[in-house]
Amino acid sequence: MSQHAENPAPEHRIKANERAKLGDSLPWEAVRASLKLNADGLIPAIAQQHDTHEVLMMAWMNLESLDETLATGRVCYWSRSRGKLWRKGESSGQVQHLKELRLDCDGDTLLLLVDQTGPACHTGRRNCFYNALRGDRVEVVAEPLIDPEQLYK
Amino acid sequence: MSQHAENPAPEHRIKANERAKLGDSLPWEAVRASLKLNADGLIPAIAQQHDTHEVLMMAWMNLESLDETLATGRVCYWSRSRGKLWRKGESSGQVQHLKELRLDCDGDTLLLLVDQTGPACHTGRRNCFYNALRGDRVEVVAEPLIDPEQLYK
Repeated sequence: MSQHAENPAPEHRIKANERAKLGDSLPWEAVRASLKLNADGLIPAIAQQHDTHEVLMMAWMNLESLDETLATGRVCYWSRSRGKLWRKGESSGQVQHLKELRLDCDGDTLLLLVDQTGPACHTGRRNCFYNALRGDRVEVVAEPLIDPEQLYK
Repeated sequence: MSQHAENPAPEHRIKANERAKLGDSLPWEAVRASLKLNADGLIPAIAQQHDTHEVLMMAWMNLESLDETLATGRVCYWSRSRGKLWRKGESSGQVQHLKELRLDCDGDTLLLLVDQTGPACHTGRRNCFYNALRGDRVEVVAEPLIDPEQLYK
Protein backbone atom coordinates (compact mmCIF):
# COMPACT_ATOMS: atom_id res chain seq x y z
CA MET A 1 0.00 0.00 0.00
CA SER A 2 1.34 3.41 -0.95
CA GLN A 3 1.43 6.41 1.37
CA HIS A 4 -1.36 7.80 -0.75
CA ALA A 5 -3.63 4.85 -0.07
CA GLU A 6 -2.96 4.94 3.67
CA ASN A 7 -4.38 8.44 3.87
CA PRO A 8 -6.51 8.93 0.77
CA ALA A 9 -7.44 12.41 -0.37
CA PRO A 10 -11.09 13.41 0.23
CA GLU A 11 -11.87 13.10 -3.47
CA HIS A 12 -10.89 9.42 -3.34
CA ARG A 13 -12.92 8.50 -0.26
CA ILE A 14 -16.24 6.71 -0.63
CA LYS A 15 -18.17 9.88 0.29
CA ALA A 16 -16.99 11.38 -3.02
CA ASN A 17 -19.38 8.98 -4.77
CA GLU A 18 -22.43 10.53 -3.06
CA ARG A 19 -22.88 13.09 -5.82
CA ALA A 20 -21.22 11.05 -8.55
CA LYS A 21 -23.01 9.93 -11.68
CA LEU A 22 -23.91 6.41 -12.72
CA GLY A 23 -20.70 4.70 -13.88
CA ASP A 24 -18.35 7.15 -12.14
CA SER A 25 -15.77 5.37 -10.04
CA LEU A 26 -13.05 5.67 -7.41
CA PRO A 27 -9.85 3.65 -6.97
CA TRP A 28 -10.44 0.63 -4.71
CA GLU A 29 -7.09 1.05 -2.96
CA ALA A 30 -8.10 4.48 -1.67
CA VAL A 31 -11.67 3.45 -0.80
CA ARG A 32 -10.36 0.39 1.07
CA ALA A 33 -8.04 2.62 3.09
CA SER A 34 -10.90 4.93 4.05
CA LEU A 35 -13.41 2.25 5.14
CA LYS A 36 -14.87 3.07 8.55
CA LEU A 37 -13.76 0.21 10.77
CA ASN A 38 -14.87 -0.03 14.40
CA ALA A 39 -12.48 0.11 17.38
CA ASP A 40 -11.64 -3.58 16.79
CA GLY A 41 -10.80 -2.95 13.13
CA LEU A 42 -14.01 -4.63 11.95
CA ILE A 43 -16.82 -3.74 9.54
CA PRO A 44 -20.23 -5.44 9.36
CA ALA A 45 -20.84 -7.51 6.22
CA ILE A 46 -24.33 -8.56 5.14
CA ALA A 47 -24.44 -11.66 2.94
CA GLN A 48 -27.28 -11.72 0.41
CA GLN A 49 -28.00 -14.51 -2.06
CA HIS A 50 -27.32 -12.78 -5.37
CA ASP A 51 -30.28 -14.14 -7.36
CA THR A 52 -33.12 -14.60 -4.87
CA HIS A 53 -32.07 -11.54 -2.78
CA GLU A 54 -32.55 -13.53 0.42
CA VAL A 55 -30.57 -12.04 3.32
CA LEU A 56 -28.53 -14.99 4.55
CA MET A 57 -26.56 -13.68 7.52
CA MET A 58 -24.55 -10.82 8.96
CA ALA A 59 -20.97 -11.22 10.16
CA TRP A 60 -17.83 -9.15 10.52
CA MET A 61 -14.73 -8.62 8.38
CA ASN A 62 -11.36 -7.05 8.97
CA LEU A 63 -9.17 -5.86 6.11
CA GLU A 64 -7.29 -9.18 6.06
CA SER A 65 -10.48 -11.22 5.63
CA LEU A 66 -11.76 -8.76 3.04
CA ASP A 67 -8.52 -8.99 1.05
CA GLU A 68 -8.63 -12.78 1.19
CA THR A 69 -12.25 -12.82 0.06
CA LEU A 70 -11.44 -10.65 -2.95
CA ALA A 71 -8.31 -12.66 -3.78
CA THR A 72 -9.96 -16.09 -3.59
CA GLY A 73 -13.60 -15.32 -4.43
CA ARG A 74 -14.60 -17.35 -1.38
CA VAL A 75 -16.03 -15.39 1.52
CA CYS A 76 -13.85 -15.15 4.61
CA TYR A 77 -15.03 -13.36 7.75
CA TRP A 78 -13.37 -12.53 11.05
CA SER A 79 -14.71 -14.66 13.88
CA ARG A 80 -15.07 -12.44 16.92
CA SER A 81 -15.67 -15.41 19.23
CA ARG A 82 -12.66 -17.39 18.02
CA GLY A 83 -10.47 -14.35 17.28
CA LYS A 84 -9.33 -15.65 13.91
CA LEU A 85 -10.15 -15.75 10.21
CA TRP A 86 -13.32 -17.68 9.49
CA ARG A 87 -13.42 -19.16 6.02
CA LYS A 88 -17.16 -19.65 5.71
CA GLY A 89 -17.86 -23.34 5.22
CA GLU A 90 -14.45 -24.56 6.42
CA SER A 91 -16.15 -26.93 8.89
CA SER A 92 -19.55 -27.44 7.27
CA GLY A 93 -18.61 -27.40 3.59
CA GLN A 94 -21.34 -24.80 3.00
CA VAL A 95 -19.26 -22.11 1.31
CA GLN A 96 -20.11 -18.67 -0.03
CA HIS A 97 -18.80 -17.60 -3.43
CA LEU A 98 -18.60 -13.85 -3.86
CA LYS A 99 -20.45 -12.52 -6.89
CA GLU A 100 -20.06 -8.81 -6.11
CA LEU A 101 -18.95 -6.56 -3.27
CA ARG A 102 -21.12 -3.54 -2.56
CA LEU A 103 -20.33 -0.69 -0.16
CA ASP A 104 -22.74 1.71 1.45
CA CYS A 105 -22.77 5.50 1.21
CA ASP A 106 -20.75 5.98 4.40
CA GLY A 107 -18.25 3.18 3.85
CA ASP A 108 -19.17 1.57 7.16
CA THR A 109 -21.13 -1.48 5.97
CA LEU A 110 -20.48 -4.08 3.28
CA LEU A 111 -23.07 -5.98 1.26
CA LEU A 112 -21.78 -9.25 -0.16
CA LEU A 113 -23.74 -10.61 -3.09
CA VAL A 114 -22.96 -14.30 -2.84
CA ASP A 115 -23.81 -17.72 -4.12
CA GLN A 116 -24.39 -19.81 -1.00
CA THR A 117 -23.96 -23.58 -1.10
CA GLY A 118 -26.75 -25.10 1.03
CA PRO A 119 -27.49 -23.59 4.42
CA ALA A 120 -25.79 -20.36 5.55
CA CYS A 121 -26.89 -20.88 9.16
CA HIS A 122 -25.12 -23.17 11.64
CA THR A 123 -28.57 -24.55 12.55
CA GLY A 124 -28.83 -26.03 9.05
CA ARG A 125 -31.34 -23.43 7.90
CA ARG A 126 -30.86 -21.57 4.64
CA ASN A 127 -30.53 -18.22 6.46
CA CYS A 128 -30.01 -17.05 10.02
CA PHE A 129 -33.16 -14.89 10.24
CA TYR A 130 -35.65 -17.66 10.95
CA ASN A 131 -37.09 -16.02 14.09
CA ALA A 132 -40.09 -13.74 13.44
CA LEU A 133 -41.89 -11.61 15.98
CA ARG A 134 -45.59 -12.47 15.77
CA GLY A 135 -47.64 -10.70 18.44
CA ASP A 136 -45.81 -11.27 21.72
CA ARG A 137 -44.10 -14.49 20.57
CA VAL A 138 -40.90 -15.10 18.61
CA GLU A 139 -41.79 -17.85 16.19
CA VAL A 140 -39.59 -20.20 14.16
CA VAL A 141 -40.51 -19.62 10.49
CA ALA A 142 -38.04 -21.88 8.65
CA GLU A 143 -36.92 -25.48 8.93
CA PRO A 144 -33.37 -26.81 8.50
CA LEU A 145 -32.35 -27.95 5.02
CA ILE A 146 -29.85 -30.29 6.65
CA ASP A 147 -29.64 -31.67 10.18
CA PRO A 148 -26.88 -29.65 11.92
CA GLU A 149 -25.51 -32.96 13.24
CA GLN A 150 -24.70 -33.81 9.63
CA LEU A 151 -23.11 -30.41 8.99
CA TYR A 152 -20.58 -30.55 11.83
CA LYS A 153 -19.90 -34.26 12.22
CA MET B 1 -40.29 -5.67 32.86
CA SER B 2 -40.41 -8.45 35.44
CA GLN B 3 -37.35 -9.87 37.19
CA HIS B 4 -37.88 -12.92 35.02
CA ALA B 5 -37.53 -10.91 31.82
CA GLU B 6 -34.42 -9.11 33.03
CA ASN B 7 -32.63 -12.42 33.35
CA PRO B 8 -34.50 -14.93 31.23
CA ALA B 9 -34.03 -18.64 31.74
CA PRO B 10 -31.97 -20.43 29.06
CA GLU B 11 -35.09 -22.07 27.66
CA HIS B 12 -36.53 -18.63 26.93
CA ARG B 13 -33.44 -17.19 25.20
CA ILE B 14 -33.27 -16.98 21.43
CA LYS B 15 -30.77 -19.85 21.27
CA ALA B 16 -33.57 -22.16 22.45
CA ASN B 17 -35.13 -21.75 19.00
CA GLU B 18 -32.10 -23.32 17.27
CA ARG B 19 -33.52 -26.82 17.56
CA ALA B 20 -37.17 -25.77 17.70
CA LYS B 21 -39.73 -26.85 15.13
CA LEU B 22 -41.54 -24.68 12.61
CA GLY B 23 -44.19 -22.70 14.49
CA ASP B 24 -42.60 -23.16 17.93
CA SER B 25 -42.21 -19.88 19.76
CA LEU B 26 -40.67 -18.04 22.69
CA PRO B 27 -42.00 -15.09 24.71
CA TRP B 28 -40.83 -11.77 23.20
CA GLU B 29 -40.25 -10.20 26.63
CA ALA B 30 -37.63 -12.84 27.45
CA VAL B 31 -36.03 -12.80 23.99
CA ARG B 32 -35.84 -9.00 24.09
CA ALA B 33 -34.06 -9.17 27.44
CA SER B 34 -31.51 -11.63 26.07
CA LEU B 35 -30.62 -9.77 22.86
CA LYS B 36 -26.85 -9.43 22.47
CA LEU B 37 -26.22 -5.69 22.53
CA ASN B 38 -22.75 -4.26 22.03
CA ALA B 39 -20.85 -2.25 24.66
CA ASP B 40 -22.88 0.83 23.68
CA GLY B 41 -26.19 -1.03 24.11
CA LEU B 42 -26.73 -1.23 20.36
CA ILE B 43 -27.64 -3.98 17.89
CA PRO B 44 -27.26 -3.80 14.10
CA ALA B 45 -30.51 -3.68 12.14
CA ILE B 46 -30.69 -4.47 8.43
CA ALA B 47 -33.65 -2.90 6.60
CA GLN B 48 -34.96 -4.94 3.67
CA GLN B 49 -37.86 -3.96 1.41
CA HIS B 50 -40.41 -6.64 2.26
CA ASP B 51 -41.67 -7.38 -1.26
CA THR B 52 -38.69 -6.85 -3.58
CA HIS B 53 -36.16 -8.12 -0.97
CA GLU B 54 -33.85 -5.22 -1.78
CA VAL B 55 -31.42 -4.49 1.08
CA LEU B 56 -32.00 -0.82 1.77
CA MET B 57 -29.58 0.08 4.56
CA MET B 58 -28.00 -0.96 7.82
CA ALA B 59 -28.26 1.10 10.99
CA TRP B 60 -28.27 0.60 14.76
CA MET B 61 -30.98 0.26 17.39
CA ASN B 62 -31.04 0.36 21.15
CA LEU B 63 -33.89 -1.15 23.16
CA GLU B 64 -35.67 2.21 23.34
CA SER B 65 -35.69 2.64 19.56
CA LEU B 66 -36.73 -0.99 19.09
CA ASP B 67 -39.62 -0.59 21.54
CA GLU B 68 -40.74 2.58 19.79
CA THR B 69 -40.56 0.89 16.40
CA LEU B 70 -42.75 -1.95 17.60
CA ALA B 71 -45.19 0.39 19.34
CA THR B 72 -45.65 2.76 16.39
CA GLY B 73 -44.94 0.53 13.39
CA ARG B 74 -42.59 3.22 12.08
CA VAL B 75 -38.91 2.40 12.15
CA CYS B 76 -36.82 4.31 14.67
CA TYR B 77 -33.04 3.82 14.92
CA TRP B 78 -30.40 5.15 17.28
CA SER B 79 -28.18 7.71 15.59
CA ARG B 80 -24.62 7.10 16.74
CA SER B 81 -23.39 10.38 15.24
CA ARG B 82 -26.12 12.50 16.84
CA GLY B 83 -26.46 10.39 20.01
CA LYS B 84 -30.25 10.36 19.90
CA LEU B 85 -33.28 8.54 18.56
CA TRP B 86 -33.53 8.76 14.79
CA ARG B 87 -37.06 8.41 13.49
CA LYS B 88 -36.28 7.42 9.93
CA GLY B 89 -37.73 10.02 7.60
CA GLU B 90 -38.20 12.71 10.26
CA SER B 91 -36.25 15.21 8.10
CA SER B 92 -36.74 13.77 4.61
CA GLY B 93 -40.29 12.42 4.88
CA GLN B 94 -39.03 9.09 3.54
CA VAL B 95 -40.30 6.78 6.29
CA GLN B 96 -40.05 3.05 6.86
CA HIS B 97 -43.11 1.12 7.94
CA LEU B 98 -42.29 -2.12 9.72
CA LYS B 99 -43.91 -5.19 8.20
CA GLU B 100 -42.10 -7.80 10.32
CA LEU B 101 -39.20 -8.03 12.74
CA ARG B 102 -36.83 -10.97 12.27
CA LEU B 103 -34.02 -12.01 14.61
CA ASP B 104 -30.99 -14.10 13.79
CA CYS B 105 -29.93 -17.36 15.40
CA ASP B 106 -27.61 -15.67 17.91
CA GLY B 107 -29.86 -12.74 18.79
CA ASP B 108 -27.18 -10.26 17.80
CA THR B 109 -28.61 -8.90 14.52
CA LEU B 110 -32.07 -7.71 13.52
CA LEU B 111 -33.65 -7.91 10.08
CA LEU B 112 -36.43 -5.39 9.54
CA LEU B 113 -38.84 -6.21 6.74
CA VAL B 114 -40.11 -2.77 5.85
CA ASP B 115 -42.11 -0.79 3.37
CA GLN B 116 -39.89 2.14 2.42
CA THR B 117 -41.37 5.37 1.12
CA GLY B 118 -39.11 6.64 -1.68
CA PRO B 119 -35.35 6.62 -1.13
CA ALA B 120 -33.83 5.02 1.97
CA CYS B 121 -30.47 6.68 1.35
CA HIS B 122 -29.63 10.27 2.28
CA THR B 123 -28.16 10.65 -1.23
CA GLY B 124 -31.65 10.25 -2.67
CA ARG B 125 -30.97 6.74 -3.90
CA ARG B 126 -33.38 3.92 -3.17
CA ASN B 127 -30.77 2.04 -1.12
CA CYS B 128 -27.39 2.83 0.42
CA PHE B 129 -25.44 0.07 -1.37
CA TYR B 130 -24.93 1.84 -4.68
CA ASN B 131 -21.13 1.38 -4.74
CA ALA B 132 -19.96 -1.81 -6.46
CA LEU B 133 -16.40 -3.06 -6.72
CA ARG B 134 -15.68 -3.71 -10.40
CA GLY B 135 -12.06 -4.67 -10.99
CA ASP B 136 -9.95 -2.13 -9.11
CA ARG B 137 -12.61 0.61 -9.22
CA VAL B 138 -15.60 1.32 -6.97
CA GLU B 139 -18.37 2.24 -9.35
CA VAL B 140 -21.67 4.03 -8.77
CA VAL B 141 -24.41 1.62 -9.90
CA ALA B 142 -27.60 3.52 -9.01
CA GLU B 143 -28.94 7.01 -9.57
CA PRO B 144 -30.92 9.12 -7.11
CA LEU B 145 -34.71 8.87 -7.25
CA ILE B 146 -34.88 12.38 -5.83
CA ASP B 147 -32.29 15.16 -5.71
CA PRO B 148 -30.99 15.19 -2.10
CA GLU B 149 -31.39 19.00 -2.13
CA GLN B 150 -35.13 18.37 -2.38
CA LEU B 151 -35.07 15.81 0.44
CA TYR B 152 -33.47 18.04 3.06
CA LYS B 153 -34.56 21.53 2.07
